[in-house]
Amino acid sequence: MEIKTLEFKDEKLYLIDQRKLPNSFETFVCETYKDVDFAIKDMVVRGAPAIGASGAYGVVLGAKEYKDLEKKDFLEKMEEILEVLNSSRPTAVNLMWGIKRMRNVIEENKELSPKEIYEKLKEEGNKIAKEDVEINKTMGEYGNTLIPEKATILTHCNAGALATVGYGTALGVIRSAFYSGKDIFVYADETRPRLQGAKLTSWELVKEEIPCKLIPDSVAATLIRDGKIDLIVVGADRIATNGDTANKIGTFMLSVVAKAYNVPIYIAAPISTIDFDIETGEEIVIEERDDEEVTHIQGKRIAPEGVKVYNPAFDVTPNENITAIITEKGIIKPPFKENILKLRP
Amino acid sequence: MEIKTLEFKDEKLYLIDQRKLPNSFETFVCETYKDVDFAIKDMVVRGAPAIGASGAYGVVLGAKEYKDLEKKDFLEKMEEILEVLNSSRPTAVNLMWGIKRMRNVIEENKELSPKEIYEKLKEEGNKIAKEDVEINKTMGEYGNTLIPEKATILTHCNAGALATVGYGTALGVIRSAFYSGKDIFVYADETRPRLQGAKLTSWELVKEEIPCKLIPDSVAATLIRDGKIDLIVVGADRIATNGDTANKIGTFMLSVVAKAYNVPIYIAAPISTIDFDIETGEEIVIEERDDEEVTHIQGKRIAPEGVKVYNPAFDVTPNENITAIITEKGIIKPPFKENILKLRP
Repeated sequence: MEIKTLEFKDEKLYLIDQRKLPNSFETFVCETYKDVDFAIKDMVVRGAPAIGASGAYGVVLGAKEYKDLEKKDFLEKMEEILEVLNSSRPTAVNLMWGIKRMRNVIEENKELSPKEIYEKLKEEGNKIAKEDVEINKTMGEYGNTLIPEKATILTHCNAGALATVGYGTALGVIRSAFYSGKDIFVYADETRPRLQGAKLTSWELVKEEIPCKLIPDSVAATLIRDGKIDLIVVGADRIATNGDTANKIGTFMLSVVAKAYNVPIYIAAPISTIDFDIETGEEIVIEERDDEEVTHIQGKRIAPEGVKVYNPAFDVTPNENITAIITEKGIIKPPFKENILKLRP
Repeated sequence: MEIKTLEFKDEKLYLIDQRKLPNSFETFVCETYKDVDFAIKDMVVRGAPAIGASGAYGVVLGAKEYKDLEKKDFLEKMEEILEVLNSSRPTAVNLMWGIKRMRNVIEENKELSPKEIYEKLKEEGNKIAKEDVEINKTMGEYGNTLIPEKATILTHCNAGALATVGYGTALGVIRSAFYSGKDIFVYADETRPRLQGAKLTSWELVKEEIPCKLIPDSVAATLIRDGKIDLIVVGADRIATNGDTANKIGTFMLSVVAKAYNVPIYIAAPISTIDFDIETGEEIVIEERDDEEVTHIQGKRIAPEGVKVYNPAFDVTPNENITAIITEKGIIKPPFKENILKLRP
């Protein structure tokens, strides 16, 4: 089964509307860069690599809209669009990375006409999308070497096909293990407050017929203590050069329990998730999202009127809690700083 | 503000219907012991001490129903009722404790007529209910000695007025600190899957105007690591004689993080929550509840059709992760086994 999280065709970006899963499978069509900005902000599309590729296609749609302008006006407009899309969401570094690749294309081709620049941007967008799937499959192969024959694997949030252009990062590793014939079992954290584990990861696992159970996030600790989890694999939204990793809220909590009970925890993420500009996790901006994500579920109020909420979307797992980072360039083991810096592009 | 979680009047048991909070405040009226059995099973009433008192009143309602029978038939029927109510829910020992008190009343008065036994049972039910509130207030006073002047306190699930006949255990400690004029702040874990923190604890805190914020359960770890939590206080469903404590799922996870970052974690529970018949937490039966608690929220499906679920209602926190146990007889510190056995009634 192939899940096409995003697809650019007929000059439009087609996204699986992840707000509607698992109850209905709908497509959200972006015709302008503003549609893409909205889709990223409102989490029609989410997951660091998927956001990176969507942002890049947002730039393509911006160029499509303004390619009939004079060169100077076009370049000014593009600068504005790059800025808007760059800040659609603050934590996932892949977004900034995708936007930067598009900015480079504009700079390298600024002698060309706006129409020609648009064509170059479209090529680059398609390249990013194609690369993402290939990268994930390579990462899956590397990751699979870490998975024992009858492993029970815990994952958090959705780092699956839906978080990427296809195949997935953490769930890509799980897919590779399953496709290679290993008799694995997966526990999926439901992942409050947005429930990406319940809505998206379970949906992917059930579709693939990978044996699994869905659990409330706080059940994980008992499973870990009782020796029922062989390893944990999750994705990442941003990795500092010392290995500190921002990922979905709850990852840090898992890492503390995993460390206490000696269960390995792996981060699966492409090199584009590493932010070579920051040294530690302390420099990572953590996005705070709306109270309504906690006080309401599917539009229905679950908490009393007037209650205040603290709702950070991510947390930072310190490098000392991480066993290894699985990338498309191989598995990064401690000492992270030294081994990560070797991979600086 | 006084919250009357349960009240026996006009020969009926009136319960606040906790399934409906915080969106609507409704009363659930039990006229028979079967109504009480249902109310406990379906979590109209929940929280170990509240279940204990409700179970006792269930026995009263059973006696009311059959008090016109011949003595022998009455006693047989009562035996059946005691059995049914004793197993309404498996984990909270207070239920067994409440039922046992009622059984003792029947045994001590079996020379009396069914009508007279009924009156004795009603007296005992009222005594249990009255004692519960007094016990909680005493516990609150002891607990308050552990709360610093400007403490930020984390709590999990609802161990409030709604979990007891009134005032609360963990939330009773928080109430005592607040009423004594301390400038406290409370973080309430929402507590998946039943969301007792979002629905009940927040509701109590907002009603009392105690400064607070609601958080997804997995946010707690970051707050703890960042030094934003001075102490954690939670209730209990069953405590073994070595101090191992069964409480709402998620308590164990919190305790691992609290231990890793040296934040004290207190259990607030009446002596009736201690099961002197078991030595360790391994003997505690953990109730598994319906998949629907995880796959549906307020009747709406959030997970895909066909996904399997693991949904234990409680977990066991080992004694080495617990700082102290606050009871109405004082604060129990380690070594728990020695100090708990001193309190055996």
